This record gives sequence, C-alpha cells and structure tokens, in this order.
Amino acid sequence: MKFLKDIESLLGNEYVLTGDSMQKFLTDWRKRYIGNALAVILPRTSSDVAAIVNLCISYNVSIVPQGGNTGLCGGATPDTSGKSIVISTIRMNSITNIDIINNSITVEAGCILKNVQNAALDCNRLFPLSLASEGSCTIGGNLATNAGGTQVLRYGNIRELTLGIEFVNAEGNIVNALRGLRKDNSGYSLRDLYIGSEGTLGIITAASLKLFPKPLDRKVILVSIGSLEQAVSFFSYSRSFFYEKITAFELMSGLCIDMVKKLLDLPKNFINKSSWFVLIEISYSDNHDETADVISSFLENSINKDLIFDAMVSNNVKQNEEIWLMRESIPIAERDFGKAIKHDISVPISSIASFVKETNSLIQASFPGVQHIIFGHIGDGNLHYNIARASWQSECQLLSLQDDIYRIVHSMVVDFGGSISAEHGVGMLKVGELSKYKSVSELHMMKLIKLAIDPYNIMNPGKILMI
Amino acid sequence: MKFLKDIESLLGNEYVLTGDSMQKFLTDWRKRYIGNALAVILPRTSSDVAAIVNLCISYNVSIVPQGGNTGLCGGATPDTSGKSIVISTIRMNSITNIDIINNSITVEAGCILKNVQNAALDCNRLFPLSLASEGSCTIGGNLATNAGGTQVLRYGNIRELTLGIEFVNAEGNIVNALRGLRKDNSGYSLRDLYIGSEGTLGIITAASLKLFPKPLDRKVILVSIGSLEQAVSFFSYSRSFFYEKITAFELMSGLCIDMVKKLLDLPKNFINKSSWFVLIEISYSDNHDETADVISSFLENSINKDLIFDAMVSNNVKQNEEIWLMRESIPIAERDFGKAIKHDISVPISSIASFVKETNSLIQASFPGVQHIIFGHIGDGNLHYNIARASWQSECQLLSLQDDIYRIVHSMVVDFGGSISAEHGVGMLKVGELSKYKSVSELHMMKLIKLAIDPYNIMNPGKILMI
Repeated sequence: MKFLKDIESLLGNEYVLTGDSMQKFLTDWRKRYIGNALAVILPRTSSDVAAIVNLCISYNVSIVPQGGNTGLCGGATPDTSGKSIVISTIRMNSITNIDIINNSITVEAGCILKNVQNAALDCNRLFPLSLASEGSCTIGGNLATNAGGTQVLRYGNIRELTLGIEFVNAEGNIVNALRGLRKDNSGYSLRDLYIGSEGTLGIITAASLKLFPKPLDRKVILVSIGSLEQAVSFFSYSRSFFYEKITAFELMSGLCIDMVKKLLDLPKNFINKSSWFVLIEISYSDNHDETADVISSFLENSINKDLIFDAMVSNNVKQNEEIWLMRESIPIAERDFGKAIKHDISVPISSIASFVKETNSLIQASFPGVQHIIFGHIGDGNLHYNIARASWQSECQLLSLQDDIYRIVHSMVVDFGGSISAEHGVGMLKVGELSKYKSVSELHMMKLIKLAIDPYNIMNPGKILMI
Repeated sequence: MKFLKDIESLLGNEYVLTGDSMQKFLTDWRKRYIGNALAVILPRTSSDVAAIVNLCISYNVSIVPQGGNTGLCGGATPDTSGKSIVISTIRMNSITNIDIINNSITVEAGCILKNVQNAALDCNRLFPLSLASEGSCTIGGNLATNAGGTQVLRYGNIRELTLGIEFVNAEGNIVNALRGLRKDNSGYSLRDLYIGSEGTLGIITAASLKLFPKPLDRKVILVSIGSLEQAVSFFSYSRSFFYEKITAFELMSGLCIDMVKKLLDLPKNFINKSSWFVLIEISYSDNHDETADVISSFLENSINKDLIFDAMVSNNVKQNEEIWLMRESIPIAERDFGKAIKHDISVPISSIASFVKETNSLIQASFPGVQHIIFGHIGDGNLHYNIARASWQSECQLLSLQDDIYRIVHSMVVDFGGSISAEHGVGMLKVGELSKYKSVSELHMMKLIKLAIDPYNIMNPGKILMI
C-alpha cells in the first residue's frame, strides 16, 4: 500500500507497526473495545507527526492519537474498520527544558506522568497532577482528556497546570503555542480548546507545565464516617480548619475498601468496617512542631461534632503511601471484581449526598441487588458511581442493562446540575450519552468548531461527537 | 428607524439611548478612542440580550458589548461609523446565588467586581480577582478580557476562577454552561473559548465563579531594591521562604513612586528614593504568633544576601491599605502624567531582567530622553512597560512614534518568548500588532473559529482580528 510505504520511508520500517505487533495498541485499558487499524505509527518528533498528518490528508486516512493507552472511555482506540491509523506518541518522551526561576517544565507529549513528577522533585519542585495510572499514562493523553485526579481540590485539573502547548492541527501544521507564560491574552485560547478535545481537533505534541514549591511534609489521615451527609459536612469543617493545606479529600465506600483488602496485604486491624471512608491529605509548606497536636485536636473536634467515627493518622512517609495505595488500588480491585457500569460524574458539592441517596433508591427499585461501587473526589464534586452485578447476575446480564442504568444515573446528574463526564472524557463510550444530555446549543457549537478546524473529519472521528 | 423601534418595543424607550445620552459609552477609559453608535442598549436579562442579537441579525447591525467600560485597549468602544449598537450590561447586575458548601457564586455579567468581592466576604469567603478598576469594572468585562490583576500569582486569572458561564452566541441563542462544577470534561470547553474572546464570539451574560477560604490575616511589605536582577532573585527567595503564602509580588519603578507621591498625601519619609520597589503581600490562613519574628528574619536574610536595600512592614490593616493604594494609584498617576505608549507584555520570569535592560537600551538609542514607566507583576512575568514623553517632546510628538516604539518593544518580547498582550487584551489598539507577531498558524485558526461561530461578523467586528 503506497500510503504505508510513504510513511515507512519517512520514519523507517521499524516505526510502522502492522499485524500482530499492533495488538496492544488496538484495545483499551478496560478491554471494552477491540479495534483494528491499517498501522500503528510511532513518530519521534512533532515534524514527524506533521508529515504523517499531511500524508493522511492526501490519502484520506483518519487518525487515532494515542498516549499511554490508559483511557477509560475508548477515546484512543480505533474503530473496527481497520481503515485508520493509530499515532502513538510513546517515542516522543523527552523532557526538553526545566526553568527553575520561571517554575516551568517543557515536555514532549509522550512523557510518562510519573517521569514528569520525578523530574520536578529532582529540582525540589512539585508537578501536582496525580492519578492512579501515573506510571504509564502520558502528558499528551492527560491533556487530551483534561485529566483530573486526586490533587484537583488544591491545584486544579491539568488545564490549570498548563502554560502552553504545541500541537499539529488537522491541516498538518505545527502550531507552537508553547510559551511558558502565566499571562497571555492575545486572542482565542487555542490551548484551552485543544485541552480536553480528545484528539478530535489535532494531536498535542508538547506542553509547557507549571511547577509549584514542593511541600515540606504531608500527613495522610484515614477516617471512617457514617453517612455522605457527614462526609460533606466533614469536608466543610476540614477546610475551615486547615484552609488550603488540604490537598486531597477522597471518598471511598465500605465496599471499595472490602475489595481492596482482598488485593493488598494489609495488616490485620488496619481498618475496621464502615459505610464510608475518607482519605485526607494535609500538605505543610513550613515546619510545624505542633502538627501532631493540631491534628489530634482536629480529629477530636470532628468526633465530638459527630462528623466521624474513627481516624488513623499516618506517622511517616511509608504509612502515607500505604493509605494512598488503598485509594489508588480501587480501579484495579474493581477490574478484578468484574466489569461494571461506570459513571464518572460531577455535581455541586452541596448536592453529593442527595444525589447518591436518590439515585441509589432508583437503581435498587429497578435492579434489586446490584452493588454500588462509589468512590471519588468530594472536594471536586466528582464521583465514580459504578454499578457491579448482583449475586444472581452474570457479567453479561449486567452489561446488557447499560443503557437503562445510564438513563437513571445520567438523568439524575442533569437534574442536579451536574456533568455526565467529569474527568475521564467522552471517548467512544459516552458519545451517545453526550448527544442526549448536552444542550442542543452546546452540541451545535461544538460541531461548528469541529467542522471548521477538521473539515474532512480525519482527526479521531466518532469520538466526542457524532459527525 | 424600524430597527430601533423594534428594540424600544422590546425593552421600553428608556433603555435605548441615543444622541447625547450615549456619550459616556462611546469613549474608552483612556480616551484614546471616540466612537459613534446607532444606539446604546441596556438589556436587563439574557433573554433581552438574545432578542436584541436576533434583531441585529435580521437587520444586519453589528454589536459592541460593553461592561464597566474600563478596558485599556478600546475593545468595548464602537468604531466611528455610527452603524453598530453598544449593548451595555450595567443593568444585569444581580448576584443570583451563593453556595457556601460548593464554594461558588453565580452572578450576572454586569455585576461590579467590588460587589462580588464584598458578597464573598459577607460569607467569610474570598473572591480573589483584584485590579485597579475593581470599583467599576464588571465580571462580564473581566471574563471577556480574561482579567489578571494582582493576585494571579496565587489564584490565577479569572479563567482559573470560573466554573461556568452563560452566553448569547452570534446566532442569538442563549448557551447555558453555568454549571457550578469543578470537573466537567464533556466536550470542547466553550467556556474557555469565550473567556478572553473580547465579545467577538458573543456576549457573556452570567458566570459561576469559585470562592476560596478567606485568609485570616495579611501582611504587606514595601521593599526597596537596586536592580531587576535582584528583584527576580528576591522573588525566588521569597517563594522559597513563604511558599504559597505569597499572594502578591508587585514591581514598581522609582519613577512610578515619584508620580504617585504627587497624587497621594503620603506621610513624609514614608519612603526613600530607590530605583525599584516591590510590594509583597503574605496571606496567613492560620494564627501565627511568630509572624513578626518570621518576617523580621526573612527581611534580615534578604538584606544580608544583598537582595534588598530596605523594607517597611505594615503593622495593621490601615497600613496594608496605604501601601496597596500606592500600587493601585499608578495608572491614575500615569494618566495625569500625560498620554504614554503602553505595553502590557509578559515574558518568562527568568527573562524579566534581561528583557528590560536590553529593551531600555534600544529605546534610549532611538529616542533619547523618553521616560520608562515600568510596573507590574513579577510573579506572572507581566510588566506594564510604558514610555512617557521626554522633556523636549509634546504628547503629540510622542504618540506619533507609537508604531516605531511598538516595533522595538514587541520584537524584543517575541525574541524573549513572550506575549504582546498579557492581561489587557487586544481590543482595537493591538489588532495590527497581533497580526504582525502572532504566528500565521494561530491567526489562521482563530479566523476559522471566528468565521464558524460568527459567519456574518456582527459580534464586535474589528476587535482582536482583522476580518
């Protein structure tokens, strides 16, 4: 095929994968989608990417950009036609610049998040984006999906952590908006249009990211709580007590912890049973001799105010990591538990408790016995509200109910003024749902933009929008 | 004229201004532009705005949106043709909701910034956007220009402070993306496309904004410094000492302070002469008995490290305000000083000192004796680099050199990887400059977006882009 020959002469044969060597790029992390492709292309530079896009325009071949392939909505998986190519950024993995005075780091799109975090730490700085897949997800994928994670409460999504990006647009031009500037009001923010556009407008090839002072110390506390109302009140109290020292406030249902216990070798009596748990992380930028006393009195107050049952405070970095590992292990424990109907939703923080209570009732009324796997980020109003099979159901039986369960949950989300996709994006998984729940005027404007920027619809077609 | 009759029957005569009653809406704050209009329209609701836009589409009348009319680049002033209308949002000034638990406030676009700040304080919260015109600028104008100001270092531009917006698009539809959510990855971020688009894509009618815990205490320090190199080193040292407690770090040249002294009734010996001054604001979220000692030792270290000459620490809220008043009075003192060639530029923080040194030399070589009025936000790399007349020049003579001075300054900005419009926007003033200094590919993409969303070019034509 002349198209692939052209790409091979551009990059060399070894970077144009076909046949079996494509396999790991054709399936998503959750193994819900198995696609096919003409080839998987591994460019090294943004010039390579631009040249590939230009060839795709000439040959009318569509493109699926892919980073670490850890997405949860099938946004980086090709369809089954076998007519598109996957462009994987895994070879574009250099850290090109760190500017300590400007507190910025410039990286290629294929850099693994953990490597960016570590490069920052080596300079006594913090790059705060943190999520379960940080060991394999890439900055390009994080940007394409506007990744959130566990530190959003304090530092924001990756959108707020980004100074500039470089991308190749759907016309095959490199657009360098990689300025390491904290203020730049010179026209429409193309950066913000591309962040979160899931590869449907072009391919992000590099980014300039903000660095922060590294906290001197962190304390992690695991708390057991009786109800979601209490969890939200406890969040408000925690913030009024510690202000912005609270860098994470993570909710986990009792079922989540039970699942994780099977996976991890936790010490006996590490944790007692409870309906809900909250992980709080407090970050200190200065030395506080009184830390232990302050936390004790905070927890004592919380118990006296009837906000929490019990609490366990980490005593050292190792214990910090043990508590965090419980939280980070939920997605893997959940996968071992069997395929679930997942919802990545957000509502105003003030509505979390009512939303869960009312939605749980509706779900149980329709599908008695299904299990609710609920965890997420209270401080962001973002819940992973997942439904696992009842004991009498097979995995297949549950999955056949996906549309009915979506209907209940997503209608409730919209009633509560929320979003049906909080941090994972739309991908393939939620295209239909978005077309139902996003307003007509917003969908219309998104289509106007897509058609203007990618008139031949070669960039990740079928993701986000039905065009 | 039938068009105006239609609008009058929609809103009532008293809200359709013509003739002399339009005057104050037709000139910009700096009085650099005097425009003309068919009428100035004062809608009350977003439905009013949508109806007006629909009439404008029918009659092919273009629209100039206007908030508090405090913009510095003529973005809210109509051209001289007298064929467009001004839509002023001043009557759309309700605070519609405050959600304490969600830490959010929802306001109409015409709300004055100061009123939003005060509403937050009344609930023991902080809305951190702060700028010199806060007593008269509106949230809609702040959003249209992505306002920055003095707290960006810690809290970001208004873009980072915004959860959702409502706007009327160029097709006359109300787009309600007013969700009070901290995470929402459901398609392209129309919010971020409209923020900073200066009314060229539609009219922002309302916003949902983030609130923060109110700091318990603030300390303001005024420091005299010998050079910009020292000021940047002092910034790095201050951040390493106080971490994110530093909420402002404002630079002022000695000339700025001399100008302000003429305007304000400062106590004698309030401040000695120096080449540069820095205002540092430190915000405390907890009670520190040791505050005074810590600040003393910080300043002592800074003097010993040869970073600063001298410092004055505020002792109370009144002194905080006095020091801030000096900083906030610079734009007014500057206006009294005579019209200047203004540059609102940003460069990486690490380049500030070299940029100023090299640009000053080039300017003096070409225009000996002109005066450099330099102030701004070191922590954001954002300088207001303004050129005032030499003693031998008239104001007119200086203004006739605008293009030559722009050429020197903006070329240097681009050489240093900076932006020619950091926080004031483009408006009319910098359309030509943007067309010279923004990359061809970025300008091309901005035009694609403008044409897709506003095909008849009725929204604020002639601003940002030459179309």
